[in-house]
Amino acid sequence: MAYNDDKINMVHGAGGEVMQGMISDIILNNVSKTSVNGGIGLEALDDSATIPIDDEHVIVTTIDSHTVQPLFFPGGDIGRISAAGTLNDISVMGVKPLSLNNAMVISEGFERSDLEKIVKSMDETCQEVGAAIITGDTKVIDSDKLDGMIIATAGIGVGKKENIVSDAGLKVGNKVIITGSVGDHGMAIMSKREGFGYETELKSDVAPVWGMVEAAQKVGTITAMKDPTRGGIANALNEMANKANVGMRLDEERIPIKPEVEAVSDMLGIDPFEVANEGKIVMGVEAENAEDVLQAIQKTKYGKDAQIIGEVTDKKHVIMETIIGGERLIEPPIADPVPRVC
Amino acid sequence: MAYNDDKINMVHGAGGEVMQGMISDIILNNVSKTSVNGGIGLEALDDSATIPIDDEHVIVTTIDSHTVQPLFFPGGDIGRISAAGTLNDISVMGVKPLSLNNAMVISEGFERSDLEKIVKSMDETCQEVGAAIITGDTKVIDSDKLDGMIIATAGIGVGKKENIVSDAGLKVGNKVIITGSVGDHGMAIMSKREGFGYETELKSDVAPVWGMVEAAQKVGTITAMKDPTRGGIANALNEMANKANVGMRLDEERIPIKPEVEAVSDMLGIDPFEVANEGKIVMGVEAENAEDVLQAIQKTKYGKDAQIIGEVTDKKHVIMETIIGGERLIEPPIADPVPRVC
Repeated sequence: MAYNDDKINMVHGAGGEVMQGMISDIILNNVSKTSVNGGIGLEALDDSATIPIDDEHVIVTTIDSHTVQPLFFPGGDIGRISAAGTLNDISVMGVKPLSLNNAMVISEGFERSDLEKIVKSMDETCQEVGAAIITGDTKVIDSDKLDGMIIATAGIGVGKKENIVSDAGLKVGNKVIITGSVGDHGMAIMSKREGFGYETELKSDVAPVWGMVEAAQKVGTITAMKDPTRGGIANALNEMANKANVGMRLDEERIPIKPEVEAVSDMLGIDPFEVANEGKIVMGVEAENAEDVLQAIQKTKYGKDAQIIGEVTDKKHVIMETIIGGERLIEPPIADPVPRVC
Repeated sequence: MAYNDDKINMVHGAGGEVMQGMISDIILNNVSKTSVNGGIGLEALDDSATIPIDDEHVIVTTIDSHTVQPLFFPGGDIGRISAAGTLNDISVMGVKPLSLNNAMVISEGFERSDLEKIVKSMDETCQEVGAAIITGDTKVIDSDKLDGMIIATAGIGVGKKENIVSDAGLKVGNKVIITGSVGDHGMAIMSKREGFGYETELKSDVAPVWGMVEAAQKVGTITAMKDPTRGGIANALNEMANKANVGMRLDEERIPIKPEVEAVSDMLGIDPFEVANEGKIVMGVEAENAEDVLQAIQKTKYGKDAQIIGEVTDKKHVIMETIIGGERLIEPPIADPVPRVC
């Protein structure tokens, strides 16, 4: 491993393969108990973990630290992303999120009014899915020790075992659905930082995805789901394929992408498939009701641009048929091209 | 409120009254749903929240960010404190902790070997109570944006409703137990920072307290518990008394304190009652079996210095009879005298 040296570097923290190497090496090698009651645990590297509590029910739980810069960006802020990020990691397990735990570390001198906006924004995001903020912690540290603020959120959902969807359940022949346009969040952050002036058109997609999961579950069978944040859909698609030991064949023409995202991607030379989304789901669904699932998702608030983008194959790669008639191998990014994106 | 200005300052993040003012003002005023299914929620400001899942059982959950400096200190490190802090917040609700969620934000250039030590230390602490680390998140940010590392841990326990102990249940006539010597953690951190050379004697007490709770529950009735971290026992005792609308009468002679803690306290002019403990419990117990509870705790690994330090009264203050025969009013600290202590 090229980056496996004595010091942690930025590549270690990104959404790509190198980070997964570090997680495996340091954390998994040093944790002796990684799951409870046979639930989904640390080594699964899924969006959330599960704790079975009786024959029928499981607790679903997750945690994320949010370090996004700038704290306020087109389409959202660190409060909205801290709530949505964790609510979405629960949602893509197939279970409704009930609650958030909120731990904020704030640098001294932080504007009180900004903190109020951020908390309001967290709350509004929770309200969209009916989740509560039930416990928290606040620490203030010197402004030369921390830039701005970091918010860690954990979350809990409780659901039936039979509804749990891991990210490893794809089967050959499944259709692959993406619930909307790709790359919006990462490119909105980059555009804001670079001052391209696209802010009016280019907005982060940060939003809670539970409504789409609920709609999809009513009409079809979801075999696998993932929240394509860091590393973008390139990372999510490959992780899902690898875990299920399958491949995918995708149709570029059907992958929704906004013209302004494409424009900024071209300017920066960054692949929009490799940057974070914060309000999308990559979903594997059984072919026979894929159209029903698609239509159900398209009727929801955040799902109108959803598309069936391809299907699961028995080959071992994620291949995309390009618009000009060629083929492109979609690989997981080595590093996230956009640091502090979420 | 003297500190209620436009910018967040260090006093806001401390363990004292001003922080609680800020929490009430900004967070509680802006969160619309603060509990689930009638459980203990955000406004209770208890060590953990609860989610009732059926007539008999509840989920207990909490979160804390850990910003302690230095990362390695006499008696522990940020890994041990991140695990113990959250395991203890679950434990003092009367329920065995099952699992941790671990979110680490690491500054670029961090030593890989230090990260390994920290993860090992978290794991060893979890092993003491049989808890698993089931999910996590890692982010790396520029070293000029974050000093060292921050670890946020959330935790989950599942227990019977009848075993849940809040921090608000004290009744007049209850005995007050402290499970060991006070101020060890805060003073060990200060001593290390100041280079007093007390490191060989003066060690943090950071440890999981579950064993003491379990032992106590077997022989007696605990009416209220609290983890006296930031703000020390002065804060915990006052918070418990205020919430139950009672007072306390304590006996200074019975409050365990190590000579080396007293020495450093005197040198720095810091009250050891106002600094953090990381392996202690303040407990209210019914008088008739208080001696049994005390003895049970004294037989556990971390409880041998436990003492009954006084009793609950119908007066509205926490009063301590001093060794020299006077009386001292114990008030909650306005600010934590030791920043970045946990």
